[in-house]
Amino acid sequence: MGKESVGITASKKNDFSEWYTQVVLKAELADYAPVKGLIVLRPDGYSIWESLKDTFDKKFAQNGIRNGFLPVLIPESLLGKEKKHFAGFNPEVFWVTHSGENEVGDRLALRPTSETLAYTLYSKWIKSWRDLPLKMNFWNTALRAEIKATKPFLRTSEFLWQEGHTVHSTEKEAKKEVFKILEIYKNTVEEELAIPVVTGKKSEKEKFVGAVFTTTMESIMPDGKALQMGTSHFLGQNFSKPFEVKFADKDNVEHFAWQTSWGVSWRLIGAMIMVHGDDKGLVLPPKVAPTQVVIVPIYNSDEDKKRVLEKSDEIKKQLESKSIRTHIDDRNELSPGYKFNDWEMKGVPLRIEIGPKDISKQKVVLAKRYNKEKTDLGFDEIEKIDLILNEIQTHMLESAREEAKQNTLNISDYTEFKEKIGKGGFFNANWCGKQECEEKIKEETGADIRVIPFDKENKEGKCIYCNEQSTSVPIFARGY
Amino acid sequence: MGKESVGITASKKNDFSEWYTQVVLKAELADYAPVKGLIVLRPDGYSIWESLKDTFDKKFAQNGIRNGFLPVLIPESLLGKEKKHFAGFNPEVFWVTHSGENEVGDRLALRPTSETLAYTLYSKWIKSWRDLPLKMNFWNTALRAEIKATKPFLRTSEFLWQEGHTVHSTEKEAKKEVFKILEIYKNTVEEELAIPVVTGKKSEKEKFVGAVFTTTMESIMPDGKALQMGTSHFLGQNFSKPFEVKFADKDNVEHFAWQTSWGVSWRLIGAMIMVHGDDKGLVLPPKVAPTQVVIVPIYNSDEDKKRVLEKSDEIKKQLESKSIRTHIDDRNELSPGYKFNDWEMKGVPLRIEIGPKDISKQKVVLAKRYNKEKTDLGFDEIEKIDLILNEIQTHMLESAREEAKQNTLNISDYTEFKEKIGKGGFFNANWCGKQECEEKIKEETGADIRVIPFDKENKEGKCIYCNEQSTSVPIFARGY
Repeated sequence: MGKESVGITASKKNDFSEWYTQVVLKAELADYAPVKGLIVLRPDGYSIWESLKDTFDKKFAQNGIRNGFLPVLIPESLLGKEKKHFAGFNPEVFWVTHSGENEVGDRLALRPTSETLAYTLYSKWIKSWRDLPLKMNFWNTALRAEIKATKPFLRTSEFLWQEGHTVHSTEKEAKKEVFKILEIYKNTVEEELAIPVVTGKKSEKEKFVGAVFTTTMESIMPDGKALQMGTSHFLGQNFSKPFEVKFADKDNVEHFAWQTSWGVSWRLIGAMIMVHGDDKGLVLPPKVAPTQVVIVPIYNSDEDKKRVLEKSDEIKKQLESKSIRTHIDDRNELSPGYKFNDWEMKGVPLRIEIGPKDISKQKVVLAKRYNKEKTDLGFDEIEKIDLILNEIQTHMLESAREEAKQNTLNISDYTEFKEKIGKGGFFNANWCGKQECEEKIKEETGADIRVIPFDKENKEGKCIYCNEQSTSVPIFARGY
Repeated sequence: MGKESVGITASKKNDFSEWYTQVVLKAELADYAPVKGLIVLRPDGYSIWESLKDTFDKKFAQNGIRNGFLPVLIPESLLGKEKKHFAGFNPEVFWVTHSGENEVGDRLALRPTSETLAYTLYSKWIKSWRDLPLKMNFWNTALRAEIKATKPFLRTSEFLWQEGHTVHSTEKEAKKEVFKILEIYKNTVEEELAIPVVTGKKSEKEKFVGAVFTTTMESIMPDGKALQMGTSHFLGQNFSKPFEVKFADKDNVEHFAWQTSWGVSWRLIGAMIMVHGDDKGLVLPPKVAPTQVVIVPIYNSDEDKKRVLEKSDEIKKQLESKSIRTHIDDRNELSPGYKFNDWEMKGVPLRIEIGPKDISKQKVVLAKRYNKEKTDLGFDEIEKIDLILNEIQTHMLESAREEAKQNTLNISDYTEFKEKIGKGGFFNANWCGKQECEEKIKEETGADIRVIPFDKENKEGKCIYCNEQSTSVPIFARGY
């Protein structure tokens, strides 16, 4: 096979969408399933998800959250109990009508989200203040039939996610939880995936159907579009009332509880691909890379092969003793050049090249994936590789932050806004708070209010659309 | 609340089924979902599953198996591609016919198992010998509409499981994988859940629909019924042919590949509850217990409370430094006796009782859940608790092995067999190998061939039913 056919043939800059799809498929993260709009994850793709899952699980556990399991089937009558919520999801629900040859009575929905199911159970489990807070998380999938064009990780009819559902005795405690979770989301995405996010609130129009308010983290993608990276909702008593999630307080008086729900999905992997990838393929942040270091042994004779493979093994063991995920590519019949391209496409953060000449000089060649830098590294410096991986992780976040900054503009003139929105970007613009202006802007520019950053919820100024008194400075952008 | 209403009120010996259900619900492992036949897992139940998952994941990884993700929806046309397989699952498939208001074209099955989906993808991914072996595992759920009476963990219409699917270039290698996996299953169940299993083959009648042969591990439950604990199938080329899972060998000739599939489910948790539980509730093997040690502080005055809680904290830290999962039950308003019963019902392996008198004597009271033994333990002996937990784990397996032995009988007379089968048990009986005898025995006694143990596949003797030449000595039993 020629290199042409196996490598990425689309340019990130010129054909972003085709480039993205090629990276997902050729780096073997995912593939299409036989049903339109569904994908499967191959080992490297799933491994990134498992890494995120582990990190979240640790942070959730530290915060007193425990995991559970909910079935995928929800009766239609139950899903319909909170009216707005149902109306929001109804058009995209998959319905089970038969089991074997038999019709099921009440149609069964494949879970688009589990509020209605979880809270039916919570209302049984919670009796008194002693049972609160109840904080649970569920690692499962959600199913929402997509009619728009689907895209691996970004828009699929079934997606891996976690959904958290907590119950509290006071409004204050529930709100605190909403923000605490958003903070966990932000830290994890920035530290593990090296993607900067902006946190804040959604507008009334954009909030989760059934929530009192929705907090969100948003990131800007290289094509200038915004991606919603995760949301944490304050549900107030909107669900506790219809689902009768009540508790007897210390004074023995019954109260409706205060609730939160929150989730992130494998969309985070899509963001990681878009933000860091380049024309050679995937670029993985070291922390989530299934393979962090690949060693490519180089030799021409059998004698050299033996020496080089022995040294490669030794280096591998040295790295593994520091818990660095290392792989030796000892495939025969493939040239070093082919292997370099292959691992670059797969985004492995560090490549070690080692041949007989390197051994005689007591060093290896170290190639960094993210900036293509190649340097010599002495055998005595191999132990520094964990530090180098950390540096790469830090630099990747810094450079993504810099790019996001360059794509963020303050704007006060609506004509200028309309001219510039075509190129994409985050636009900080004053807004009066009226849904009418928000809708007009959307209609005329395609841009939504992505997020009202927490530090810009109360800002003086004039609404970019109607010129009236502004109450906040949201970020406007076209979104995924 | 009185103790009566919260504790287990059924006897394991006299009303096994009711006892089991009460333990599942009252120990808060699981609860019923709104759809008949479905359950949800509460944190303690899910934690046991996570513990098993971690152990299996480590062993699978050591064996070169990697995890992936498959969607839950399989088109009817694809599920029907292997005829016998489809006929086997068809009556229990949940069918999706609509998404939103729209009819889907080809009906979509909720995965009863993923062979057909996985192998469609494998046929795309596998091109040459270089791509083999391909060994993947999927942690997901399977959905099979149950018409029989359902029971948490044992028979539910959706269940958590793992399904492994491997592809090999030779028959020999694939068969080796089948046995390797069964060995992993056996070790894990015996070492983690302290349940002894018998491994061997299923009869032709009982094998997986589509397999060449099925290996199984079976355990005997305290009510004398057999439970299938996990199966590992040799699929031969039965699927690789219809699904065109082919590879070009080194000589560039194309061959159909050899395949395996295998799975265990949360049924293992059901077995653990049945085998170890008693009239006070759950008894957890230490290795999978969400809480391994519970400390119950005992005090009457505020001054004592302070001292006792301080010492409790100190012990907790000491235990946690050894990675022992420890909880202090410092709930006010509840008596020590209530707490003892509560944690006994929940099956926590060790309880530490500590009061002011204990402190003055520099010791605690240590209560073992599995044999109800209570002893003093000096402060200087606290560090031995990890050894004590290991001992408990070992003893639990030994005592379960002893019980299984007592419930296993060699039998050669069919009249005697018919008399004794009512009480349950494993019966080693000679069999001629004819399906006719197997079916007659099932019809007349309700007993299946559960497993033909590996060391009894070729045994001389006379068939218990027809008196003709016997080829093996299977275990007959009534099953779950």
